Amino acid sequence: MPRNKTYKPCDLVIYGGLGDLSTRKLIISLYRLEKAGLIEKDTRIIAVDRHEKETSEFVEIANNSLRTFLNESIDEELWQRFSARLSYLKIDLTQMDEYQRLHEVLTPETNVLVNYFAVSPMLFKSICQGLQQSEVLNAESRIVMEKPIGHDLKSSQEINDVVANVFNEDQVFRIDHYLGKETVLNLLALRFANSFFTTNWDHNTIDHIQITVAEEVGIEGRWEYFDQTGQLRDMLQNHLLQILTFVAMEPPVNLEAQSIHSEKIKVLKALRPITESNVEQTTVRGQYTQGFQKATPVPGYLEEDGANTESKTESFVAVRVDIDNWRWAGVPFYLRSGKRMNYKRTEIVVYFKQLPHNIFKESFRHLPPNKLIIHLQPNEAIEIEMLNKVPGIDGDIKLQKTKLDLSFSEAFKENKLFGGYEKLILEALRGNPTLFLSREEIEQAWTWVDSIQNAWKKTNDEPRPYPAGTWGPIASDSLLARDGRAWEG
Amino acid sequence: MPRNKTYKPCDLVIYGGLGDLSTRKLIISLYRLEKAGLIEKDTRIIAVDRHEKETSEFVEIANNSLRTFLNESIDEELWQRFSARLSYLKIDLTQMDEYQRLHEVLTPETNVLVNYFAVSPMLFKSICQGLQQSEVLNAESRIVMEKPIGHDLKSSQEINDVVANVFNEDQVFRIDHYLGKETVLNLLALRFANSFFTTNWDHNTIDHIQITVAEEVGIEGRWEYFDQTGQLRDMLQNHLLQILTFVAMEPPVNLEAQSIHSEKIKVLKALRPITESNVEQTTVRGQYTQGFQKATPVPGYLEEDGANTESKTESFVAVRVDIDNWRWAGVPFYLRSGKRMNYKRTEIVVYFKQLPHNIFKESFRHLPPNKLIIHLQPNEAIEIEMLNKVPGIDGDIKLQKTKLDLSFSEAFKENKLFGGYEKLILEALRGNPTLFLSREEIEQAWTWVDSIQNAWKKTNDEPRPYPAGTWGPIASDSLLARDGRAWEG
Repeated sequence: MPRNKTYKPCDLVIYGGLGDLSTRKLIISLYRLEKAGLIEKDTRIIAVDRHEKETSEFVEIANNSLRTFLNESIDEELWQRFSARLSYLKIDLTQMDEYQRLHEVLTPETNVLVNYFAVSPMLFKSICQGLQQSEVLNAESRIVMEKPIGHDLKSSQEINDVVANVFNEDQVFRIDHYLGKETVLNLLALRFANSFFTTNWDHNTIDHIQITVAEEVGIEGRWEYFDQTGQLRDMLQNHLLQILTFVAMEPPVNLEAQSIHSEKIKVLKALRPITESNVEQTTVRGQYTQGFQKATPVPGYLEEDGANTESKTESFVAVRVDIDNWRWAGVPFYLRSGKRMNYKRTEIVVYFKQLPHNIFKESFRHLPPNKLIIHLQPNEAIEIEMLNKVPGIDGDIKLQKTKLDLSFSEAFKENKLFGGYEKLILEALRGNPTLFLSREEIEQAWTWVDSIQNAWKKTNDEPRPYPAGTWGPIASDSLLARDGRAWEG
Repeated sequence: MPRNKTYKPCDLVIYGGLGDLSTRKLIISLYRLEKAGLIEKDTRIIAVDRHEKETSEFVEIANNSLRTFLNESIDEELWQRFSARLSYLKIDLTQMDEYQRLHEVLTPETNVLVNYFAVSPMLFKSICQGLQQSEVLNAESRIVMEKPIGHDLKSSQEINDVVANVFNEDQVFRIDHYLGKETVLNLLALRFANSFFTTNWDHNTIDHIQITVAEEVGIEGRWEYFDQTGQLRDMLQNHLLQILTFVAMEPPVNLEAQSIHSEKIKVLKALRPITESNVEQTTVRGQYTQGFQKATPVPGYLEEDGANTESKTESFVAVRVDIDNWRWAGVPFYLRSGKRMNYKRTEIVVYFKQLPHNIFKESFRHLPPNKLIIHLQPNEAIEIEMLNKVPGIDGDIKLQKTKLDLSFSEAFKENKLFGGYEKLILEALRGNPTLFLSREEIEQAWTWVDSIQNAWKKTNDEPRPYPAGTWGPIASDSLLARDGRAWEG
């Protein structure tokens, strides 16, 4: 792999270095980047947490993590190189004076300080203050953070204000790991490098678009957190709306962060508000009851450990989204996301319009529309569903649906597929903000989501039950049936 | 395979029953149709020729043909069923009184008389008169004939007149075996059952279209015939123009013969005339010289057995065709066909327009256009060439051309692919005229081709030499290069 550019090495400080996010995901991703030769030679990784530990102990923890989560055997030479980057620093993040210790390990003359907040947002304020008071920051320093960035507009603004007190917006890298996925990035190529799609991407040719993020998991260990949140805020506000912006945005003038951010914002601003007056027609909430997944019985949401049996929190949400702009007038986007669905599946389905006239009535009384299907999980792939003549010489022309399949793993056998995390961590280390969320985007998304949440509250909307292992409540099907449509099967 | 309809059985009379067309192609195709269970139970096959033969001898000839040309072992039970249909009748086609013998074998009470003219057009007149005088014809009777139907408008009209004296136009089935090919028929499905293509099929989105029919064979045994004809009349007037009409025609209101014929005629009438004034800019003639095919030396056109070394006949032709109608204004169709090309290859390539703006300059200074590639020979397949992001996390978005491949043999493994002949013979036996050429079409095509031929004569155009085993003379590349384009490689 030829390297065109070099980048400044980093001091990557992981706050919450002993926590799950750090040990289960970041360490694994960093090791993979190491393996790909993508981490600058002098970059160092510093785990910060409140427990007293030696670096050697943290190295041991990292090694165990790799053994447990890497899914491949560890290359000894690679591990030597990687582990030499690791160090551990004990800081109680609530104690301002302890941040001074950062001076002992940082190398500001050569390295960019990248602060990865792998802790609860409740600690963001302390960390920001600690960093400021200890005077370790400069204009190059960055901060990386993940969802949840608030649970509504107000709390999100509070977090962003705390961060903004210490960092400029261009220093803040907010992660949505869906934006690191190959197929999401490929949306830019599909849409803007192929006249085939570029000329076929608006209300003239597209009937509607579906976005599904179905999880197989239930709530399990994190009932309390989730019950405060619900599926709308946990998944739709971020992942589904992010996918939607990539699908719906106008062509950016170039691929620079600002150009792309500004097009995404325009989409979010054009989302038709959902309020008391239309919430019942445009949204469906669901809550799973006991059921079966792969023939195994699983408990309902209200029967999970630690559940409050009175909870009205939704574990499923479906929304009809209208984008009030020139391109998408009259083209609904149907979004749905739920837990304990039949199987794990993330996909975008673009339904093209039906043809106005059917000369193949012998085969199809109604010609099925062309579809573009973009699979994000569990496998990344792109399919075009179209009609072809069935080969055969007996009788009239018979049509059959066939799929043109561009499976990434097949088409690009040589190129290892990375997960979204690796891509985003690499971009953060390199200081390229294109694939991260701007404050304005997040707050705009919250504004829209808050209005739904408020409308539910005002209408006393109760989630509808759906058995675990299904695709959500029947009302979700009715949402599309009202428009004469159906979810992709 | 469920049979929806039944058809009247036929008395299929093959004039020239001992000739190559009959024994090498028709018998093979008929056997294949038998195998597929598509020949009506009481249909009979009567070979007519001037030699004295017993039916048993003809059955033996048919059996030998199958052994030589079928490429699969003969099923004994099937052969019994098939051979029972065969009979032989001695008629000297120039002797009017001998046609009376047809009465001995025909079964007009139950069977439709289908007359297959597998002889030189010079005999058509005798046959038509013989059939008329012997009073074997009725309104249901049909005639099937193949190219060459004349070598220019005048000779074509003469043949059509001879036939029209005895048969109504709706009784005449003129074969172009390219129209029996699955991929040609699938063009109707692609174009008119998929909004994806229907909305992308005109001067707004298509830059130009290429049609290539490249033969590997040289002239060999039939030098004299070919030298009177040339590639323009031998291949372009029929096969390439027929493909062109399927690619270019307006949507027919339905799939009935008349609807499709009328749309095809409209295309042929809209072909911009090529005359003395533009023939040099729009056509290229070539004649092969000695060269290599698959590393084997092969002689030049003028060195073939029986060659007149002064011949100016073209074995290669390339033409820029403009269709002067609303849909195709400004979209050239480049047609080329030649003998002794590098390899056998028939394909249609639709080049979509380049995008007006390129945001991926890092990968491609000029974004390559999307293409739809329809392969007809040697294998039938459809491909869409588009750009995708190369998976990989290092650096900017890199694009790569990838192909969505719909290979017929892959996509429809269950459905045996028949050749064009079987399809057309079946349609003739069933009396469905959709896939056959109307008189008007053929004469319109000749009108256009004659003007090219005349222009060449007037400008004393000499064919340019090209080595056997190449893609024709350099002037063929220049033809496209003048327009800033290139042949599909």
